[in-house]
Amino acid sequence: MDSKIINRRDLDFMLYDMLDVESLTTRPRFADHSRDTFDAAIDLSMKIATDHYLPHLRKNDTNEPRFENGRVVMIPEVKAAVDQFIEAGLLAAGQEEEWGGMQLPTTVAHACYALFDGANVATASYTFLTIGASNLIKSFGSDVQRERYLRPMLAGRFFGTMALTEPQAGSGLADVRTRAVPQDDGTYRITGNKIFISAGDHELSENIIHMVLARIEGAPAGVKGISLFIVPKVLVNEDGSLGARNDVALGGLIHKMGWRGTTSTMLNFGENGGAVGYLVGEPHKGLSYMFQMMNEARIGVGRCAVMLGYAGYLHSLDYARNRPQGRLPTDKDPASPQVPIVNHADVKRMLLAQKAAVEGGLALTLSCARLVDEQETGETEAARAEAQLLLDILTPIAKAWPSDYCLEANVHAIQIHGGYGFTREYQVEQYYRDNRLNPIHEGTNGIQAIDLLGRKVTMMNGAALQALGKRYAQAITDARASGDDRVLWLADRFEEAVARLRKTTETLVPMGAEGKVELFLANATAYLHQFGHTVLAWIWLRQATTAARLAAASPHDAERAFLDGKFAAARYFYVWELPKTAVWAGILESKDDTLLATADASF
Amino acid sequence: MDSKIINRRDLDFMLYDMLDVESLTTRPRFADHSRDTFDAAIDLSMKIATDHYLPHLRKNDTNEPRFENGRVVMIPEVKAAVDQFIEAGLLAAGQEEEWGGMQLPTTVAHACYALFDGANVATASYTFLTIGASNLIKSFGSDVQRERYLRPMLAGRFFGTMALTEPQAGSGLADVRTRAVPQDDGTYRITGNKIFISAGDHELSENIIHMVLARIEGAPAGVKGISLFIVPKVLVNEDGSLGARNDVALGGLIHKMGWRGTTSTMLNFGENGGAVGYLVGEPHKGLSYMFQMMNEARIGVGRCAVMLGYAGYLHSLDYARNRPQGRLPTDKDPASPQVPIVNHADVKRMLLAQKAAVEGGLALTLSCARLVDEQETGETEAARAEAQLLLDILTPIAKAWPSDYCLEANVHAIQIHGGYGFTREYQVEQYYRDNRLNPIHEGTNGIQAIDLLGRKVTMMNGAALQALGKRYAQAITDARASGDDRVLWLADRFEEAVARLRKTTETLVPMGAEGKVELFLANATAYLHQFGHTVLAWIWLRQATTAARLAAASPHDAERAFLDGKFAAARYFYVWELPKTAVWAGILESKDDTLLATADASF
Repeated sequence: MDSKIINRRDLDFMLYDMLDVESLTTRPRFADHSRDTFDAAIDLSMKIATDHYLPHLRKNDTNEPRFENGRVVMIPEVKAAVDQFIEAGLLAAGQEEEWGGMQLPTTVAHACYALFDGANVATASYTFLTIGASNLIKSFGSDVQRERYLRPMLAGRFFGTMALTEPQAGSGLADVRTRAVPQDDGTYRITGNKIFISAGDHELSENIIHMVLARIEGAPAGVKGISLFIVPKVLVNEDGSLGARNDVALGGLIHKMGWRGTTSTMLNFGENGGAVGYLVGEPHKGLSYMFQMMNEARIGVGRCAVMLGYAGYLHSLDYARNRPQGRLPTDKDPASPQVPIVNHADVKRMLLAQKAAVEGGLALTLSCARLVDEQETGETEAARAEAQLLLDILTPIAKAWPSDYCLEANVHAIQIHGGYGFTREYQVEQYYRDNRLNPIHEGTNGIQAIDLLGRKVTMMNGAALQALGKRYAQAITDARASGDDRVLWLADRFEEAVARLRKTTETLVPMGAEGKVELFLANATAYLHQFGHTVLAWIWLRQATTAARLAAASPHDAERAFLDGKFAAARYFYVWELPKTAVWAGILESKDDTLLATADASF
Repeated sequence: MDSKIINRRDLDFMLYDMLDVESLTTRPRFADHSRDTFDAAIDLSMKIATDHYLPHLRKNDTNEPRFENGRVVMIPEVKAAVDQFIEAGLLAAGQEEEWGGMQLPTTVAHACYALFDGANVATASYTFLTIGASNLIKSFGSDVQRERYLRPMLAGRFFGTMALTEPQAGSGLADVRTRAVPQDDGTYRITGNKIFISAGDHELSENIIHMVLARIEGAPAGVKGISLFIVPKVLVNEDGSLGARNDVALGGLIHKMGWRGTTSTMLNFGENGGAVGYLVGEPHKGLSYMFQMMNEARIGVGRCAVMLGYAGYLHSLDYARNRPQGRLPTDKDPASPQVPIVNHADVKRMLLAQKAAVEGGLALTLSCARLVDEQETGETEAARAEAQLLLDILTPIAKAWPSDYCLEANVHAIQIHGGYGFTREYQVEQYYRDNRLNPIHEGTNGIQAIDLLGRKVTMMNGAALQALGKRYAQAITDARASGDDRVLWLADRFEEAVARLRKTTETLVPMGAEGKVELFLANATAYLHQFGHTVLAWIWLRQATTAARLAAASPHDAERAFLDGKFAAARYFYVWELPKTAVWAGILESKDDTLLATADASF
C-alpha cells in the first residue's frame, strides 16, 4: 500500500466485490463499458491526483489566493492540475457521450472523484463546483442555456459556482434577499450580496457561471418565492463568444482555517445598477431545483470527509509501522529493542477507529452513488422509485456521518503521531483543519438531523424507512447464509440495533402528529446519530458478508490479511460504536426536554 | 458576562460555594489571607490577562517566533505581557513569603493562572514552564542551587524549561540517551539532543534554566538510570552574575498547528564538547523526581484544555445570542422576524455540551488543586495522606478528560458559528487548533489510561480507589440531604454509575494478577473514559448540590438563572453523557480482544 490516498484493494473490494458495479454494464447506458474501462478511469484519476494534485497540497495551504489589483492571484500549480483534470475529460465523467462525456456510472465517477478529494481537496473544489453547477443547468436550463453555458462548462472553458448563502440569512434560505427585476428583453437585473461563495473568483477559466438564488420582485415571502438564475461573470454573446464584464464584483476573500487553496468569496451583484441574470426554469422554483440536486452534492461532501479521513488513516498507519517506541507490557527488559508503535494495543485502537470510520464511510458513499445509478438506470420503474426513496433517507447520513466521524478519525491520526502530529511538518494536521468544514457546509449537520427526522422519516407514510427496512432484512439474510461465525455474530447484533431504532422511531413519530413538534425535533441530533450508526452497522455487515464469501475461496496471504482487516474493523465498530445507539435511544424514548427547557439566561 | 475568558460568578461559585476555599484561611500557612486577598489576586490576574495577554492572542498566532541570525525573534507584546505577570509577583503566587511569594493556596493560584491560559495560552506558557522548573529545583535542589537558580527564576530574571523528550524516544523516557559524564569538579558534561522543548529559546529573560533528563555513564538501562540536571543556557557564577555561554545550541524551531507563539525547539547539548550540568538530588532518581512534580503539571494541562474550551464556549454563546437566523419549528410565517439562534434546540445542545465540559472540567481542576492544598496543609497526617491518594488517582482524569472533552467543546463552538467559525476572523478556530495539543503533551491520553488502570487503581491494594469511593458516598449523602428533586434524580443515577464502575474494576483487576497483563491493559482507554465520566458525574453532582443550597436562599433573578444553568448542565451531562459508561463497561467486562487480535498486516 504505497499510496497515501487510498488502499486500491479496498476500493476494488467495494466497487466490484460488494457493489458489483460490473453488473451495470448490462444496462444500455453503460453497454460500452467494462471492468477494464472502469479501471482505466480510476487509474487515470489516480495518476493525475498523485502527479498533479498531491504535490502542491501543502503549498496550496501555505500560499492561499490573494486579491491584488482587482485580480485573484494563486499558485500556478492549481491551474496546471485542473487543466489535467479537464484534459482527461473528467468534468464530464458521468455525462452522456453527446455532451462529450465518458458516460460512466455515477458509482465509478464518485470513485474517481474521491481520489482528488484525498489528494488535494482545495484544488479539486474548483472542478467539483463546476460539475454541480453544470448539473443544475442540464436538469433545469433551456436548450439555449445548455448550449451557451453547459457545453463550455463541460469542456472546462467556463467554471461554475453555487451562490446561495447571504450574510443575513446563512442556513436560512427563506430569508434570501437578493433581488431580481425583470427586464423587457426577458432577462433580469440582479442586486444583492452573497457570502462564502467557493471558487467565486479566479483566473482558472475564461468565465465563471454563478448559479444565483434570488427573489423576483413581488414574489411570495419565504422559500416559495426564490428563483434560480444564471449570472455569468462575463456575458456570453449569442454566438458563444465572450462579451462585456457583468456587474458582479468580488467583495473580498475570506480567510479560512483549512481549504485555504479554495477561494471563498463575498460577491456583490449589481453594485453598478444590476447584474444581468437569466432565469433557470420557472419562477419561484429555485429552491426545489436546488433540492433536487442536493442529494448528490451532500453525498459529495460526505465523500470528501471520508477521503480526508482516509488520507489521515494511511499517513498514521505508515507512521505507526515505522516509528519504534516503547515495549509491550510483557517485556520488562529495558535493553530490548523498541517495537514499532503499531504493536501497542491503544495505537491499534486508534487505527481501527479510523479504519471503521473511513472504510465504512467510503462504502456508504459508494453505496449511495450506486443508488443514484439505480435511480437513473434501474430496470423497472419500481426499482428506480425504490432507489430514489433510499437515497432520500440515506442522504442526511451520507453527509453528516462521515463529516462527524471521519473528522474524529483525523483527531486519532494526529494522536498516533504524538508531538509530530501537532507540527506542520506532518500532513495530518492539515486534514484535521480541512475536514472541520464538512460538518458545516451543504447544510449543517444539525440541519441534516431535522431533514432526516422532520421530513425523510415521515414522508409518504414512512415509505423510505420501509424501503430501508427491506434492505436491512436482506442484509441479515445474506449474512446468515454466509455461515461464517464472525458474520453471524454481527448479524445478531445488527438485528437488535434495527429493532431498537424501530422502537425509537415509533415513539417519536406520533409526537409530530400530536402537535408536539418542538419536542419531536428537539433531540433530532441524537436521532441522526442513532440512525447513522445503524446505517453504518448495515454497511459493515455487508462488507463482512462480502469478505466471508471471498475468504471461503482460499485467498492468498495478503488477500486473507486484507479480509481479516474487514472482520476486525466490523467487529471494532460493533463493539466500540454500535452500543452507543442505546444511549441515544434512551434520550429519545424518554422524550427528554433538557434542551428545550434551558433558558437563554441560564447559559 | 462581558469577559470572554471566564464567567466570574462561575469561578466564585466553584472557589467559595463549592470548595469553600475561604476555610483555608484558618490554617497557619494562609493565616494572612482572606477572601479579600484571594479576590485581589484574581482581580489583578484578570486585569493583566485582559489588558496584556488577550490583545495579542491572534497576533501571536500569525507571527510565530523566527530564528534569525542565531536569535529567536518574536513580537514585542509577549515580553511586555510576561513582564506584567512577573511584576505582579505571580511567578511566586503559591510560594512562601521568604521566597518573595504571595503564599496563596494552590487552588487560588490555579484560578489565577487559568485566566492566562484562557487569554493567551502561548504567551502564558513561558511563565508556567518557569514555575514548573522552579518547583523541581525547590523540591530536590541543594541550598546552593536554590539560591543560584530558584531565586532569580521566582523573580523572573531566569526562565525555565523541562527538557525530557528525545527524538528517538518520545513518550518512552526509558530510552532517553542524553549522556552525562562526571567531572573532577563535581559537575557533569551533558551531550545529547532534545526535541519539543517548549520555551527552549527566547530573549524574554536574562537566562534559561533547562531541567534535563540524562543518563550518567554506566547507569542502569531503563527508567532507573535517569538523572536530573540543571543545565543553564548561560553559566551562573558563584556570586550570581552571569558567566560564559554554555554549550547548548538551538537546533531549530518547530512549526506547530497551534500554540504558535510558544517556541517549540530542538536543543543540542554538547555540540562543542559538553554542556555543563549540575546534578539535582541523587543520581538515577531523575524520573522519580519528575513524577513527583507531574501531578501538578498534568492538572495544569487539564486546566489549559478547560480554559481554551471555556473561551470557545463564551465566544459561541455570545454569537448565538446576537445572530438572528431562522425561526422556531412552531412558526410557519416566513414574514416573521428571525430569532437569535440561541433559541434553537440544537444550538442549546451544543451550548450545554460545552457548558457541561468546561464548567465540569474547571471544577475538576480546582478540586484537584484543592487536594494539593490539603495534601500540603491538611490538619492531620491522615487527611494529608488521603489527599495524596486522591490526587494520585484523579490526576490522569484531570489531564485526559478535559483534553478530550473540552477539545470536543471547541468543535461545537465552531459549529455554532456556522461558516464564520471556519474563518480566521473568529477566534474559535484558533482554540480548536491550540487545544489539539493537550491530549498529546505531558503524557498522551493513552499513557494516562495505562497510568490509571495499570498503576493508580491497583496501588496499595486499591487504597486510592477506596479513598475516592468514600468521597463518592459522601457526595451522595450530601445530595440526598438537599431534598431538591433535581439533585435526588442525579444522586440515584450517580449511585448506579459508581456501582457499574466498581463491577468493571472488579472484573479487570484479577486479570493483571493472573498474568494476563496484555489483555488487562488492552482496553485501558475505555476504562479511562468510564472512570472519567464517573468522576465528572461526581463533580456535577457536587455542583448541583451546592446550587440547591444557594437556590433555597431566595436568590435574586440573575443568580437564580445562574443556578438553573448549573442544574441544566448537570442534567445534560447525566442524560447525554453518563449513559456512555455502560458502553465502555460492556467492552471491558466482556474482556474484548479485538484490539489485541488485529494483526499489523490487516490494517
